[in-house]
Amino acid sequence: MTILSSGIARAERLLGTDSRTRDVAKSLYSVVADHPIVSPHGHVSAQLLVANDRFSEPATLLITPDHYVTRLLHAHGIGLDELGVRNDVDPRTIWSRFAQTWHAFLGTPVRYWIQQELIDIFGIAEALTPESADDIYDRISELLAQDDYRPLALLERFRIDVLATTDDPADSLDAHRRLRDATSTSVIPTFRADRYMLPAASGWGDALRELEIASGISCGTLAGLTHALRERRQVFASAGGTSTDTGVIDAWATPLNPVDAERLHRDALAGSISASDARAYRRNMLFRLAEMSAEDGLVMQLHAGVIRNHHSPTTARFGTDTGHDLPAPTEFTRPLQDLLETFGTATNFRIVLFTVDEASFSRDIAPLAGFYPSVYAGAPWWFLDAPRAILRYREAVSETAGFYKTSGFIDDTRALCSIPVRHDMSRRLDAAYLATLVIDGQITATDAETLIDDLTSGIPRSVFRL
Amino acid sequence: MTILSSGIARAERLLGTDSRTRDVAKSLYSVVADHPIVSPHGHVSAQLLVANDRFSEPATLLITPDHYVTRLLHAHGIGLDELGVRNDVDPRTIWSRFAQTWHAFLGTPVRYWIQQELIDIFGIAEALTPESADDIYDRISELLAQDDYRPLALLERFRIDVLATTDDPADSLDAHRRLRDATSTSVIPTFRADRYMLPAASGWGDALRELEIASGISCGTLAGLTHALRERRQVFASAGGTSTDTGVIDAWATPLNPVDAERLHRDALAGSISASDARAYRRNMLFRLAEMSAEDGLVMQLHAGVIRNHHSPTTARFGTDTGHDLPAPTEFTRPLQDLLETFGTATNFRIVLFTVDEASFSRDIAPLAGFYPSVYAGAPWWFLDAPRAILRYREAVSETAGFYKTSGFIDDTRALCSIPVRHDMSRRLDAAYLATLVIDGQITATDAETLIDDLTSGIPRSVFRL
Amino acid sequence: MTILSSGIARAERLLGTDSRTRDVAKSLYSVVADHPIVSPHGHVSAQLLVANDRFSEPATLLITPDHYVTRLLHAHGIGLDELGVRNDVDPRTIWSRFAQTWHAFLGTPVRYWIQQELIDIFGIAEALTPESADDIYDRISELLAQDDYRPLALLERFRIDVLATTDDPADSLDAHRRLRDATSTSVIPTFRADRYMLPAASGWGDALRELEIASGISCGTLAGLTHALRERRQVFASAGGTSTDTGVIDAWATPLNPVDAERLHRDALAGSISASDARAYRRNMLFRLAEMSAEDGLVMQLHAGVIRNHHSPTTARFGTDTGHDLPAPTEFTRPLQDLLETFGTATNFRIVLFTVDEASFSRDIAPLAGFYPSVYAGAPWWFLDAPRAILRYREAVSETAGFYKTSGFIDDTRALCSIPVRHDMSRRLDAAYLATLVIDGQITATDAETLIDDLTSGIPRSVFRL
Repeated sequence: MTILSSGIARAERLLGTDSRTRDVAKSLYSVVADHPIVSPHGHVSAQLLVANDRFSEPATLLITPDHYVTRLLHAHGIGLDELGVRNDVDPRTIWSRFAQTWHAFLGTPVRYWIQQELIDIFGIAEALTPESADDIYDRISELLAQDDYRPLALLERFRIDVLATTDDPADSLDAHRRLRDATSTSVIPTFRADRYMLPAASGWGDALRELEIASGISCGTLAGLTHALRERRQVFASAGGTSTDTGVIDAWATPLNPVDAERLHRDALAGSISASDARAYRRNMLFRLAEMSAEDGLVMQLHAGVIRNHHSPTTARFGTDTGHDLPAPTEFTRPLQDLLETFGTATNFRIVLFTVDEASFSRDIAPLAGFYPSVYAGAPWWFLDAPRAILRYREAVSETAGFYKTSGFIDDTRALCSIPVRHDMSRRLDAAYLATLVIDGQITATDAETLIDDLTSGIPRSVFRL
Repeated sequence: MTILSSGIARAERLLGTDSRTRDVAKSLYSVVADHPIVSPHGHVSAQLLVANDRFSEPATLLITPDHYVTRLLHAHGIGLDELGVRNDVDPRTIWSRFAQTWHAFLGTPVRYWIQQELIDIFGIAEALTPESADDIYDRISELLAQDDYRPLALLERFRIDVLATTDDPADSLDAHRRLRDATSTSVIPTFRADRYMLPAASGWGDALRELEIASGISCGTLAGLTHALRERRQVFASAGGTSTDTGVIDAWATPLNPVDAERLHRDALAGSISASDARAYRRNMLFRLAEMSAEDGLVMQLHAGVIRNHHSPTTARFGTDTGHDLPAPTEFTRPLQDLLETFGTATNFRIVLFTVDEASFSRDIAPLAGFYPSVYAGAPWWFLDAPRAILRYREAVSETAGFYKTSGFIDDTRALCSIPVRHDMSRRLDAAYLATLVIDGQITATDAETLIDDLTSGIPRSVFRL
Repeated sequence: MTILSSGIARAERLLGTDSRTRDVAKSLYSVVADHPIVSPHGHVSAQLLVANDRFSEPATLLITPDHYVTRLLHAHGIGLDELGVRNDVDPRTIWSRFAQTWHAFLGTPVRYWIQQELIDIFGIAEALTPESADDIYDRISELLAQDDYRPLALLERFRIDVLATTDDPADSLDAHRRLRDATSTSVIPTFRADRYMLPAASGWGDALRELEIASGISCGTLAGLTHALRERRQVFASAGGTSTDTGVIDAWATPLNPVDAERLHRDALAGSISASDARAYRRNMLFRLAEMSAEDGLVMQLHAGVIRNHHSPTTARFGTDTGHDLPAPTEFTRPLQDLLETFGTATNFRIVLFTVDEASFSRDIAPLAGFYPSVYAGAPWWFLDAPRAILRYREAVSETAGFYKTSGFIDDTRALCSIPVRHDMSRRLDAAYLATLVIDGQITATDAETLIDDLTSGIPRSVFRL
């Protein structure tokens, strides 16, 4: 056991257990280990990049803003108010609480990612413990004070070729324009119109007003709103955007006739839309977004099946995105039937399906991607963006849809420092999965070499029209 | 890597990755590698066998009629009209399109099967590429012109002991009778009454008329239809049939009282049955089919949970079975409660459950098969008839229901040439799974040898009363 | 193959297949192999322990009372009346039937457990066959006649530190009190109020009357019933109980206002409660049980999603718990929203979630346990308490919730002799899973050593407040 107590050599991580498979996996991984990163979907803010301010210290960099981290600390009894989520807490105290609860992350990808970040970005190989926490805090803080730890410098160091952000249709995209000259990374916007789809939610009216200002088009009718969204999509496309993103509680996309739809819009403006009408409004909107994608060719990303804000006392106190968005049972095949009958074989249309209910991988997503030219199986997302879940995804999807109807890896993160290790993890796991197919005699090693290269570069570029 | 570039030796394929397990698996596989094939359920046509015509060339043999193949080509943008699905296309052009899209099948069992067919049946070890496509096309065409590539010769060569076809109750079964003297394979019919269960579908009236002609019994009442079906089941049994097959969107089997049921039948004849009544009619019919099976001992196969014809424009243009039949979430335990309360412990009754929603393997099917003497867990079907899915099936089912309440392998295919490799794949995977149990110390190697033999021969013969 | 025909050495069982992983797993397993057993949930009867009578022979010890065993025999056509389930059958004949059907258990954990019990408890290494059955029967019977095979002696021999029983609120707990001096094992009660939650069931009225007698509190109102339950919980806590258990068909917990709830209680007393009202009553009761747990700190175990008594003819003839309780599709996230909004972050409250629908592991349970401080992921239960299912549980849960929000192993058994082997199996599988994480470079061997120790001892003690 002693030989293992310092951990497995980096060269072997996540590449499989038995030696024969691991040797093939190592060889495959070496093909793509140094490939630049293509990140077609994520949540790093363009404003953060443009500002290019120094990060002050590790807690506000790695803990407080990352709900992957704060939710598990919360699960171990540390209140979000003790983590500075919506209030001021001494960051060194936050870091210390994190170090004391570090064992809670054993077996999770978060621990794997942060460990790699400490080593790769900050050169800290020492184990994080309550004892070492202070010293590590100081060492990171010191490095963050240097210019080569500013956001844009990190972007360069991480060798990110393309970085897609996620943006509101009303966003001016000024930050993206200014980034064109500021970095060699292509930072492109993604059009996300979620809040326009929820006419019973409190923010809907504000959203409409902001969109009217951004577009100069009145949103007093649904036709107006639709027109404004269409125009803004063009602005996004001109700014380099190639895709949209939509997050919905379910994937139903059912068109309403325009008269009924306008009535719902009026009711919503009057503040009198019922819950079931609001649902119908959302489902019609999803259908219309597909219609727009079929027209303008922006790739439609669909993230379905998340119950937002499960614990309302936490939302009331700390706001949204605080760790209690949770998966719902999710179907795609029945809910998307209207949409796919209409646009499923349309030339320009493309939709990438993401789920946090893994039952839908083999039941819905792979069979849909295996017939419809427009449908792609999105990479494992959120709770499923972890080593075993990624392997389950490959196993569940590849046999029905092959590899070339999958999206390629998507990091979907707002944690800038985690981007390299997330992509690296995905490359290793793809190598490990392909190696089992080689050893099983299902594909040749030559095919596997082509596949690992395509999965890393060619496929995401092609699927997202980059 | 070089040593692997030509692929893994045939002797090792699909037998597991680590050497210790693989050695046990090889040994287990060798027990059954040469066993004759028992195929208790499939879709090869008896007419094709009786006619015994030469196949003309590879595209119409291997591509056009196989929706496993055409659907993935379609998913990559090749229209069904470019594949000759309902129109005439130069077959060499189809073959060339297939070769150009061959990479899309990497990781799917279709690629594995076709590669093995090329080697085993046609002696073609050369890789299929756009460059080699023409030459391979010619070599296969040349072989297909020979008498020993006619359907019956292939049947002999494949060493198929029993081959079950799938047939309409109105089928005369003449082809089956003629095949008795024409081949040593026992070609037996399977009674599939699906179209009689769907009174709102366009083909229902025609079906009734054809059944009236075949049976000489009026189907103007449900009692008449039921009588006719009962009579035809006897004819099927006399022709060697031992089982029936039923495909339904859900597994609900709820009996109606005869008066209500007759009213639905009358409504349907009048063309005025509602959608919900049509559903009640189908669910009553499923219950009645179980009743008949309890009487006559024909084994009831239940294939539940497929949404047929998801993309209606494709159906309108190219017909049914064109690659967009897709899985629905599927339960068995609740839907079959009435049926199993009535027939679940009846002496003669036997039902084999098949699903394309793998969530039902461990949740529904294994627990049902682990209590009811009449219930058997059907082999992985359709989208799940692939290496990893087959292993997931074994893992999900065996621990609750053991091996002796599973059905044995079923190829369920209309692709004659794929039958041997499908059975071979299943034998290899069973060997691999049993080997892990041996290495894990759960069963002895001697037990595993008995099991692999029973899974291949004894169990399918026994479950299907062959 | 010969080297394997006698089976894998005990030291290697269930520890993984490839040699590198197995070596790490062996090392990890050795850390906990001899740890005493903590059994925080099970169904061994305190009365059986107090009586401390000799078991008479193997059939009534190992077969007849264990529905894991009888259900699979029933599935192979052996009637429950042939197994002595509710009638007298010569036990040697039962044993012989079992031996003849022993092959049906290949691949199931039941076979693994019983084989280990024969070796470890009775010293019988000989294979059970129809030929050896009689001799083995005699040898076991002879041993059972000895004093060191009485229940309390076995308890000592098995080194069980804590054994939780499951008890009705009306139980006097006399047996538990008497056991304090009779054994060094801490035998503690668990409060299970299921039958008080089902006001339309036949036993509800009797339950209320028994509870009235036990508590001295009238249950003529719901307030009274609630008061009585609260009082009894205190009695259970005083007798060492630290947890409650609740089994429900679904996890919905929806509070009613007291007036409506009292109306349902009155209707139920009058025998006129509707099915939907009975459901509302149950769901309110589940909410109230959580409320009580938040008050008194008894850990709430929730076992959701079992359809009881699927085959009513069997229930009518043989009673409940006869092998046809079957899994239903089960959610937790939506059904528990009201409950968790109210108690999810309450200081004292703790709930452990168990499922027999494994789709809920990664979709519901792990994400809930990964946010709510009160929620823990219960160990795999019933149909899922088997090697592959346990590994799937670890894979599905750990990446989202880590290890420290899982419950530790729970044997949940009434089969006293199976307790040691069940715990041993769990320890081996945890070792095997942790070993793959070590080899994959996700955790260090040192971390794995701490984890295996905590999973075996610290975690169950801490989660169940032992």
